[in-house]
Amino acid sequence: MKILVCNDDGISSPGIFALVKSLKEIADVTVIAPLNEQSAIGHAITMQVPLRVSEYRINGTLFGLAVNGTPADCIKIGIRNLMDSPPDLVVSGINHGSNTAINIIYSGTVSAAREAAIMDVPSMAVSVTNHNVKDFSVAAELTKHLIEKTPIKQLPTGTLLNINIPDLPKEKIVGIKITTQGKSKWDDIYERRVDPYGKDYYWLTGELLQLDKKIDTDQGAINKNFVSITPIHFDLTDYETFNKMKEWNLDNLINGK
Amino acid sequence: MKILVCNDDGISSPGIFALVKSLKEIADVTVIAPLNEQSAIGHAITMQVPLRVSEYRINGTLFGLAVNGTPADCIKIGIRNLMDSPPDLVVSGINHGSNTAINIIYSGTVSAAREAAIMDVPSMAVSVTNHNVKDFSVAAELTKHLIEKTPIKQLPTGTLLNINIPDLPKEKIVGIKITTQGKSKWDDIYERRVDPYGKDYYWLTGELLQLDKKIDTDQGAINKNFVSITPIHFDLTDYETFNKMKEWNLDNLINGK
Repeated sequence: MKILVCNDDGISSPGIFALVKSLKEIADVTVIAPLNEQSAIGHAITMQVPLRVSEYRINGTLFGLAVNGTPADCIKIGIRNLMDSPPDLVVSGINHGSNTAINIIYSGTVSAAREAAIMDVPSMAVSVTNHNVKDFSVAAELTKHLIEKTPIKQLPTGTLLNINIPDLPKEKIVGIKITTQGKSKWDDIYERRVDPYGKDYYWLTGELLQLDKKIDTDQGAINKNFVSITPIHFDLTDYETFNKMKEWNLDNLINGK
Repeated sequence: MKILVCNDDGISSPGIFALVKSLKEIADVTVIAPLNEQSAIGHAITMQVPLRVSEYRINGTLFGLAVNGTPADCIKIGIRNLMDSPPDLVVSGINHGSNTAINIIYSGTVSAAREAAIMDVPSMAVSVTNHNVKDFSVAAELTKHLIEKTPIKQLPTGTLLNINIPDLPKEKIVGIKITTQGKSKWDDIYERRVDPYGKDYYWLTGELLQLDKKIDTDQGAINKNFVSITPIHFDLTDYETFNKMKEWNLDNLINGK
């Protein structure tokens, strides 16, 4: 099995090292990841500047290819140009910090996996629920087991798995829940500061409003120390509203009637 | 009615001028838009550098506020910090080029409207199906009529409208279709070049594979010279797969069984 690994924290982050180490036990692993941190980059792709690709070595040994772009760029150029043939699976992560609820929208980690799904390659995004993870080994091992022991490669084309793993020792993880995307979202605050030249600037801060009490939502599951696995896709159509809107009488609008 | 206008082509692009001119006939309009072009930026938000806000004037008259960030940043900081009270509606556009099918994922224009929906503000993204539009007046007028004559402000919280308008004179537009997000996607090509110093670099090019023949898809509708209106949301859960995955027996996976 051939696995392409990407992330959004950058090719030199501890999470991707732990993931690659674990997946090499079961697969032929290729690493193509952003040169620099790309958190909250969403599904951006680079079109206004060209991409560069460089070898990233650790103690002289090739670890992977670094791209001066976004996670989605890495998947596109990786599969189109840099790999000899498409991978059987793309794994994006392990992200430092959870990607649940509204964060799925902002996440570069999830977007790398989503780009793979767009390219018809089975994929998963893996995150640990802490920005300062000390030990990725539980999450790395669980990811390996998920690939080995579940029908992930038989998911429908265009569907990917978004996996969030509590930052806990294995014995403290309660279980695994299949979940839906939660409704929790950010109470954004822009902190206003003044630079040494007297001009204002703003830093985005804020806190996640915990709106998911149910255990079958991603945020609800991790709050109760479960692993959360959410199947997501990229069809954004709101079908309920689509059906209701057929009653809107729009045909005369072109003429302003 | 108070409308916040944003886009992804930048505050100085012709599409936003035409939109603002038209909406001022029916509403109190505030413009908060990116300082620079942000096409294909997706739903990126800026966290690693601070944001700056500057006044953008035309012949000395204030047109709006320019933010050195992404479309989603503009909506967040606009509603949180820069406006006295939230707008009744956010309109993003008018984009130079269509935002249909897979492009919804990459679009900064759609992401600005989606960020508004996340913040519980009714919103719409408006695009014209040509990158070199000569005359935005048909699209600008139609947008105004849509706001005046449809129940757009009664859409469910979290649902926004993605509107694509053919670049045609009014009499050649066949009608308006309520559509779903199409399946058309890009056949990406990375064009490899060599810089003056002998190093490779890559430009993303490619063409859109036309996979939408049905007229009730966004791409299918505009191909037949209809205006396309797609209700979209930000719940990415694949519910069909969610229900099927309940049969996966995952509880022993924590222990690698």
